[in-house]
Amino acid sequence: MQILVINAGSSSMKYQLIETDDKTVLAKGLAERIGIAGSRVKHQFTKNGASIEKVVEQDLPNHNVAFEIITQLLTDKEDAVIASPEAITAVGHRIVHGGEKFSETQVITPEVKETIRALIPLAPLHNPANLIGVEAAEKFFPNAVQVAVFDTAFHQTLPEHAFRYAIPEKFYAEEKIRVYGFHGTSHKYVYNEAKKYLKNEKLKAITIHLGNGSSMTAIDENGHSIDTSLGFGPLCGLIMGTRSGDIDPSVIFHMLEQLNMPLEKIKNVLNKESGMLGLAGSSDARDVAARYNEGDPNAALTFEMYGYRIRKYIGAYMAALNGVDALIFTAGLGENSILTRRYACKNLEGLGIELDEELNVDNNHADTPVEIQTPSGKVKILIVPTNEEWQIAKEVAELVAKA
Amino acid sequence: MQILVINAGSSSMKYQLIETDDKTVLAKGLAERIGIAGSRVKHQFTKNGASIEKVVEQDLPNHNVAFEIITQLLTDKEDAVIASPEAITAVGHRIVHGGEKFSETQVITPEVKETIRALIPLAPLHNPANLIGVEAAEKFFPNAVQVAVFDTAFHQTLPEHAFRYAIPEKFYAEEKIRVYGFHGTSHKYVYNEAKKYLKNEKLKAITIHLGNGSSMTAIDENGHSIDTSLGFGPLCGLIMGTRSGDIDPSVIFHMLEQLNMPLEKIKNVLNKESGMLGLAGSSDARDVAARYNEGDPNAALTFEMYGYRIRKYIGAYMAALNGVDALIFTAGLGENSILTRRYACKNLEGLGIELDEELNVDNNHADTPVEIQTPSGKVKILIVPTNEEWQIAKEVAELVAKA
Repeated sequence: MQILVINAGSSSMKYQLIETDDKTVLAKGLAERIGIAGSRVKHQFTKNGASIEKVVEQDLPNHNVAFEIITQLLTDKEDAVIASPEAITAVGHRIVHGGEKFSETQVITPEVKETIRALIPLAPLHNPANLIGVEAAEKFFPNAVQVAVFDTAFHQTLPEHAFRYAIPEKFYAEEKIRVYGFHGTSHKYVYNEAKKYLKNEKLKAITIHLGNGSSMTAIDENGHSIDTSLGFGPLCGLIMGTRSGDIDPSVIFHMLEQLNMPLEKIKNVLNKESGMLGLAGSSDARDVAARYNEGDPNAALTFEMYGYRIRKYIGAYMAALNGVDALIFTAGLGENSILTRRYACKNLEGLGIELDEELNVDNNHADTPVEIQTPSGKVKILIVPTNEEWQIAKEVAELVAKA
Repeated sequence: MQILVINAGSSSMKYQLIETDDKTVLAKGLAERIGIAGSRVKHQFTKNGASIEKVVEQDLPNHNVAFEIITQLLTDKEDAVIASPEAITAVGHRIVHGGEKFSETQVITPEVKETIRALIPLAPLHNPANLIGVEAAEKFFPNAVQVAVFDTAFHQTLPEHAFRYAIPEKFYAEEKIRVYGFHGTSHKYVYNEAKKYLKNEKLKAITIHLGNGSSMTAIDENGHSIDTSLGFGPLCGLIMGTRSGDIDPSVIFHMLEQLNMPLEKIKNVLNKESGMLGLAGSSDARDVAARYNEGDPNAALTFEMYGYRIRKYIGAYMAALNGVDALIFTAGLGENSILTRRYACKNLEGLGIELDEELNVDNNHADTPVEIQTPSGKVKILIVPTNEEWQIAKEVAELVAKA
């Protein structure tokens, strides 16, 4: 089955056309600067074994036009990967926020769209953009089934003691303030890959998704997410590229009252100027690693803090799970940063966690699941490359097959 | 040596007169509603083996007058515990915030007072009240040495990776925004008591101070605090009587922007209407326990959440310490709440933590250190009654003896 996977932002749209029968990516790309001067589509596909990239520089006044260009590229005479847009059976949309309504992937009906719209106050940046992508796809692929895959859905199994904040109940009952968590598609995918790889049907694992946004999830022996480090929004938990992660709320009050900082400025600092960028001057872990290797003390502190925060969540989730079988590193830094994994596993032998430094180095950029613990380490340490697009395509295909 | 220990709030003053030579409390009490109608002093002492309480209802326009009444009570003909105010060699003041300046107990000089004053932006409620207490004591006991014991001092050993937030460096360098931690005197006291009791000179412990304000501290084999759950202010970390503890900062932005709540209201909700009160309708754990026993689901959720938060910190601090020898419960709920300890240790056998339920019940209200783990539990679980006043008196006596 050929499924188009869409991740729509307000001015961008990522896509992958996936053949689920043989798990191949027929083409993928990115429409950038939609509605802004200088817009373009970067399109990649494979021809006779060679990877080809085409760039179409053209005005993209809206997401509809972007879809027009994308389907032209997909069906382009010489370089066609499909015969016509009708070949696409279903379109899978990554939707950031499904609130408490959606714990599973959904065929998009008018009611589902209405609910996604009603959840905009909880995801004011993402859900509106996701909806624009849905509506453009509906126009452009009227015969395809439109499916929503929610970033929050996997975490709907959190027990109440983990998803509630200790604030007056009305803020939950009336305002829906609770832990939702994100990156669910990635956590679910790498957990299932690890389960297959380890041949452990009752795997208790901690998944560690370290990208520009980062989160960790405690997953119990039934494959249920029971706690996760992102909460109501995407700001708390781990240290990220530009986000602070956990911070005492008193700091916000102090910034407002004692430092007289306007609210917008504070949000900007915590979301866009903090994390690795705020500590080391770059949000790119490769830059920070280069400085680390030159002996820069700020870079050293950054990796120490970044790793220490992960270690504290490892401990916390070992408590939540009453012990753990495996740690699973994934996404940009999880798959590709030797230093990050080193600091994330530092001085944890007392908890049965021992990273094999040689395996850690040799298996950097692993493209299949791989173990990197020492022979004596009781807890498995894995690198598992994530593949959110594949997880989305798979869930869409399963849902369409059932329907 | 007779030492008066003072804990001054803006409208209250707690005191204890301690004879350090034989570790006895000669008298203790509380001046309430200073500067407010209906003020009074409650004074307790022991006479011929009987505990006596006197209440003096009198206008207390300021802390000086309160000291006047207190010394009258201490030197009162029939019930005198000291002959004259001059018998008091030193006054030990609990000072909440010592910033990065004070990692040890200090004789109060004009420079020390100036520094405590300069730290007011970091502790706008507490440091001014503490200073009022110091200045009243200076006037009233001009011959006594005045000594400051800081609630933050014990945590000045935190390593930088634990005390820094992942926000731009200037907020630390210029604005001193970092983790300070509080309840240091209590954490230090119960750790040392546990060390003596267990006869372990290299004890790695997690101290769990559960009062109306609560915090946990990871203490390494050298007796150094290496991490603590309260941070820049007294709001984060554990669930408390009326404070939320950890919460995603996105919630504050949502309250400000989507719910249009004024800042003062939000501060009030998180500091005074949250925690046990917000979840269960009472900040008193005894009330919540009574409702729990009647089958109230909100009370059950409250203990589950309260305990779960503690369990996550136990795990996090086991990671920080690379394993742990002992958990130490102390303060109001830590010493006196069977349910709290039960939920704080629930389902942790996988980490070597096993509470003996019978010992937990039998040793409630323990007045000396006691172990409550099962025979097979690898981690000791202790109840250790805290005694901040004694710790303050001891530090004051040691400092005065050295001077």
